[in-house]
Amino acid sequence: MTVHDQALRARTASLVLARIPRAGKDAGLHAMADALAKAETAVLQANQTDVARAEAAGTSVALVDRLRLTPDRVAGMVEGLRALAGLPDPVGDVVRGWTNANGVQVRQVRVPFGVVGIIYEARPNVTADAAGISLKSGNAVLLRGSSSAADSNTAIVHALRAGLQDADLPPDAVQLVSGPREVTAELMAARGLVDVLIPRGGAGLIDAVVRGSQVPVIETGVGNCHLFVDAGADKDMALDILLNAKTQRPSVCNAVETLLVHADIANSFVPRALQALGSAGVTVHGDDRIAGYGDVVAVEEVDFAQEYLSLDLAAAVVDSLDQALAHIRTYSTGHSETIVTESQTSAQRFVAEVDAAAVLVNASSRFVDGGEFGFGAEIGISTQKLHARGPMGLPEMTSTKYVITGQGQTRA
Amino acid sequence: MTVHDQALRARTASLVLARIPRAGKDAGLHAMADALAKAETAVLQANQTDVARAEAAGTSVALVDRLRLTPDRVAGMVEGLRALAGLPDPVGDVVRGWTNANGVQVRQVRVPFGVVGIIYEARPNVTADAAGISLKSGNAVLLRGSSSAADSNTAIVHALRAGLQDADLPPDAVQLVSGPREVTAELMAARGLVDVLIPRGGAGLIDAVVRGSQVPVIETGVGNCHLFVDAGADKDMALDILLNAKTQRPSVCNAVETLLVHADIANSFVPRALQALGSAGVTVHGDDRIAGYGDVVAVEEVDFAQEYLSLDLAAAVVDSLDQALAHIRTYSTGHSETIVTESQTSAQRFVAEVDAAAVLVNASSRFVDGGEFGFGAEIGISTQKLHARGPMGLPEMTSTKYVITGQGQTRA
Repeated sequence: MTVHDQALRARTASLVLARIPRAGKDAGLHAMADALAKAETAVLQANQTDVARAEAAGTSVALVDRLRLTPDRVAGMVEGLRALAGLPDPVGDVVRGWTNANGVQVRQVRVPFGVVGIIYEARPNVTADAAGISLKSGNAVLLRGSSSAADSNTAIVHALRAGLQDADLPPDAVQLVSGPREVTAELMAARGLVDVLIPRGGAGLIDAVVRGSQVPVIETGVGNCHLFVDAGADKDMALDILLNAKTQRPSVCNAVETLLVHADIANSFVPRALQALGSAGVTVHGDDRIAGYGDVVAVEEVDFAQEYLSLDLAAAVVDSLDQALAHIRTYSTGHSETIVTESQTSAQRFVAEVDAAAVLVNASSRFVDGGEFGFGAEIGISTQKLHARGPMGLPEMTSTKYVITGQGQTRA
Repeated sequence: MTVHDQALRARTASLVLARIPRAGKDAGLHAMADALAKAETAVLQANQTDVARAEAAGTSVALVDRLRLTPDRVAGMVEGLRALAGLPDPVGDVVRGWTNANGVQVRQVRVPFGVVGIIYEARPNVTADAAGISLKSGNAVLLRGSSSAADSNTAIVHALRAGLQDADLPPDAVQLVSGPREVTAELMAARGLVDVLIPRGGAGLIDAVVRGSQVPVIETGVGNCHLFVDAGADKDMALDILLNAKTQRPSVCNAVETLLVHADIANSFVPRALQALGSAGVTVHGDDRIAGYGDVVAVEEVDFAQEYLSLDLAAAVVDSLDQALAHIRTYSTGHSETIVTESQTSAQRFVAEVDAAAVLVNASSRFVDGGEFGFGAEIGISTQKLHARGPMGLPEMTSTKYVITGQGQTRA
């Protein structure tokens, strides 16, 4: 079946989903969870095929680990689907409404997008998450996973579709888009059939989708995040936040990648920071002024521009808040930027002048997360300015529609 | 100056605009209004050059009329700028906010996009409107007008920039992007420098921008709008709404272009409708069943697909609500779709199943308009599902930012 045909089927399914009340969708989520739990053995077997293929191809240990499913990870997917059933349904929410002087009533109501395409990399758990979030928000979904996870994804989607069938919902609401690279191009060209594409993965994938797609795209995830320690900052606090934001989970997009230290506090802060970072296993890529305080790898331009996603940290001393702001303006991907400061003026300027999905004052950037925000589910963290910016929960997976009701009114 | 250089200057100006409180922007709007009023003679002279060039090129009377400025139209632009000063400032609005269990405070705050690009056709009044809306929403704007209005636009922008200067605001917040067609392509490629592109104009322009742009786009305006007269509708009401929606201002996007009549009411409704439409100067392009009730032009497939923007109307008899819904699904551009009905079931199904920015029950589609919605200003009517759908006022010209404030909290 071509992508076009799959999209048409998804569109037909989406018309059904858009009209199903919450109870029907929640029953579908539980049925998908039941079916996935029942298919555990088949899913794990399929995953072993993917893992064996990846290992034979010499794939890195980290990537193979992302790819690997365990009974625990399958149980996590199942629980994720059930948890979605417990969340409020955004569809039908009245965002605002009013009555005109002539009695015409206007309501702006949340509606599903229709058909969503998700393009993602190795983690097979995204398959179940994305399918569940799409169903709960009333959208049919076309899942374009990585070829490395093809067998796992096929087995997971097979189970999810069986669950939909059990719940009398259209199985075409969840479809895997398989095949060679050209298939992704077809998905990106399916304007009018696919309402939105959400790429989830590394910078390369996201950039390719953004540039190639005629379908509207929501960019997610690339986080080259900065932490600026201002003059007069509470040094203990700065150190706590730095270590948390860098080391609590270095592989995620809201981890800090660059430390900027105000020159006025460098003497007392940088030596402590280098020691603590070293003890935590962090490799610091420092500029000349950082290097004056301890043993670091010499930083290069490319370090400032990159999202390490590892226990590496670029670091520089800056002479002023302005210089920190300029550095962030140059290198930020617009995800999450942090200042540690005791100065109200510095905090206000940082909040006002940094252009990012989230700006933080005296808190760890690890808090920029759908779970921490209480959203219950997260399809990704948007780093673009249209539609959704920051963690995307269920309401961000919807559009709106104006419903206008009168008794025959016409315009004068 | 290249588009890239202009965009860089706009970016710099946008950093200033983002930090100016409402009073400063309102002063800028009044200064722009004053400068434009003072430049009336120069603007009208420049416009005469454009009009003469258009007439010499054999441009249609309707297009020349769109292009032509009069003292009244200039006064309208001036008043439009002053009216914007009276509207609330969306920037800084807290959309939502909460405090986490650990005391971390989260606020989602409206912020400007940064740099907006508007690509538009012949009407020179859009130049002042778009500049004013952009300034009020804190955005710098790159205005890509039509070459046919080049002299008018140059004169208007010259005045607006003088006004900004008078108000101590950066003139580069409002720039005209001039030059050959390639310039539009440069604007569409300015990803990272331009935050959003809004095309305003005909279907061809909008389609070209949507397909060609790497900058995120908000589609506006194409309205192939339908009116469905259900079985058992109030025929007087249906006739009132039909005439209003078709003839009150046929050249606009929320005018009705196709009439669909339920077979059960056709005998009693269509003859009256044809007579009234004829008296109002409307040419009806009817299917065979419509033709059975009077003298009409034979409708062709292309009629159903097109936005006439004139006193033409496609018309067909359908056997059911389902058939009407299917017709609308096939031909609608997702702008504004209307049902006239006394049936609660039909109304509910129409509202639920029609996929459009606005769905209307027993009211004229001419109400789908920023002015009628009380927005005070409108940059266009979005027909896409991302970010904004329907009339776009000042809040729709902004993004949001999460501001997160703690006292040293880290993630467990």
